[in-house]
Amino acid sequence: MKIAVDAMGGDYAPEEIVKGALQAASEFNLEIVLVGDQEKIEKELAKHNYQNLSISIAPASQVIEMGEHPATTLRRKPDSSIMVATDLVKKGEAQAVVSAGNTGAAMAAAKLRLRSISGLERPAIATVLPSEKERCLLLDAGANVDCKPKHLLHFALMGSIYVEKIWGIKQPKVGLLNIGEEETKGNELSLATYELLKQSNLNFVGNIEGRDITKGQVDVIVCDGFVGNVVLKFGEGLSGSIFHLIKEEIKNSFIAKLGVIFLNSVFAVLKKKMDYSEYGGAPLLGVNGVSIISHGSSKKKAIKNAIRVAKEVVETKVVDNISQGIVKLGVEEE
Amino acid sequence: MKIAVDAMGGDYAPEEIVKGALQAASEFNLEIVLVGDQEKIEKELAKHNYQNLSISIAPASQVIEMGEHPATTLRRKPDSSIMVATDLVKKGEAQAVVSAGNTGAAMAAAKLRLRSISGLERPAIATVLPSEKERCLLLDAGANVDCKPKHLLHFALMGSIYVEKIWGIKQPKVGLLNIGEEETKGNELSLATYELLKQSNLNFVGNIEGRDITKGQVDVIVCDGFVGNVVLKFGEGLSGSIFHLIKEEIKNSFIAKLGVIFLNSVFAVLKKKMDYSEYGGAPLLGVNGVSIISHGSSKKKAIKNAIRVAKEVVETKVVDNISQGIVKLGVEEE
Repeated sequence: MKIAVDAMGGDYAPEEIVKGALQAASEFNLEIVLVGDQEKIEKELAKHNYQNLSISIAPASQVIEMGEHPATTLRRKPDSSIMVATDLVKKGEAQAVVSAGNTGAAMAAAKLRLRSISGLERPAIATVLPSEKERCLLLDAGANVDCKPKHLLHFALMGSIYVEKIWGIKQPKVGLLNIGEEETKGNELSLATYELLKQSNLNFVGNIEGRDITKGQVDVIVCDGFVGNVVLKFGEGLSGSIFHLIKEEIKNSFIAKLGVIFLNSVFAVLKKKMDYSEYGGAPLLGVNGVSIISHGSSKKKAIKNAIRVAKEVVETKVVDNISQGIVKLGVEEE
Repeated sequence: MKIAVDAMGGDYAPEEIVKGALQAASEFNLEIVLVGDQEKIEKELAKHNYQNLSISIAPASQVIEMGEHPATTLRRKPDSSIMVATDLVKKGEAQAVVSAGNTGAAMAAAKLRLRSISGLERPAIATVLPSEKERCLLLDAGANVDCKPKHLLHFALMGSIYVEKIWGIKQPKVGLLNIGEEETKGNELSLATYELLKQSNLNFVGNIEGRDITKGQVDVIVCDGFVGNVVLKFGEGLSGSIFHLIKEEIKNSFIAKLGVIFLNSVFAVLKKKMDYSEYGGAPLLGVNGVSIISHGSSKKKAIKNAIRVAKEVVETKVVDNISQGIVKLGVEEE
């Protein structure tokens, strides 16, 4: 299996991307194509011993920066690393693309080149949220706004397939993010989506409220991408703030400083649990191909794990399963 | 000043409600009308020495339970404590109503009896969120779904007035909750709201993302009530989960248990900072009268603080200021 890695994408590109790619090639026995500025990539590669690994370079002369507007920039930079990497998947020369660069650009490139799965209008970003039990998958985390009920039904299907194939959970529990538990609560979108989910053959367990997101009662949480994106980023921000406050308070107290020595193991476990890099990137589900989007601040571990996720998604044929699932769902196009 | 307190509303009613009301009457030198089951209230009062306080009872024979559907139940229970308490404000016999009962019912009663301020369609619940700096006010926290841009503009105005009057912050900074910082980011609602806010005379500082909610860069955050409700409850749930995980990990480690002794002061500060009962209830802004909605799990401290907030809102004439602000805003009705 060959994975195309956008070597120029992310805050720590290309150094950490190359490191993570080499580790993944070695640990998972994969072929890796590093896509980007050949000279820079070769310079990074020269720091490592990679003779026994299957590493190649696909040159790309342009880079889409983090702040650039995705759609317009893609047109202006056809030879950007994310575009070239995505094209490798389109041409069948790679089985998946992994990028820690501009999320919008990675998404736009995948939609443009790989196209949406037939019968599905809106690919979605699926993101892992830690929970008290273990974790759950939330989608859409920001690929779409102003969604229709049908889109959320598709998110539920894609999430269920992903969780079943990648996490090995049979008949994953699906919850609809809403502002009340009762069927009659919500906005126009959630009320109509509730009906669709109830009629579907998915394991829909009902509405879940914001306070239950981290409780671990469901495996898949579906919502509009606006709400999902706010939730995802608020979760990052709030847990960051709580740890920041703990640190500040500890700094102010000699006694507390003593306590920290004893609590280091506790904070280490917590940090691991809250650490996005353990989960390895968010798949863009709903396109004809495998595209994994990694956090912009990904270092080697996050990149390695994102490549691992890409490999698992390819191996378990998640894309084919979604295609078949959409057909079986049999919801008429409006 | 006389405050009507729904003595039957909340998980710990009437016991904790009566306790909080007595404390408030004493500390803030207020008249309190306890509204609800006379016999039960008298039984609670008998446990205390309140001879020097201005406490009276307004009997109400019905109670709206937490799970009941607000609008239909209000019609079925015209003599419910929340309805009778709200009517006291309508009739001018009290200057504010405070309830820790069914939020939807408290809101519906206020909308029904006190009516929306002229020119304003959608009253909103304003809730305090702790931040790294101090705190910010988020609205709407769940009174409305499927909002229009004009509604969010009104939320921004009401929030600004509240923060200026109650927290003493001149020209409070207003942020629009969105999925990107750029003006071009967002859904239909946020894009159109951005334009309205930019043209207004409010101190609009732009979009803020989920990760910035707790950073304390703005004083007022506006969003649709669906999003606000998810954010509010997710914040409660996530911080609860983090503390739960810390406790669980500590339980598993003898060494960590020793550390806790030293860290108790740190956790106490954090708990105080994250504790809704310190903030004392969420005002329903936009109705012709003062209605403060307290958390369902309010104990005496939260009730006392909610009554304090009610008093401050009355004293600073927040309602009149909102009325005048809406006129000045001069946005044409659609």
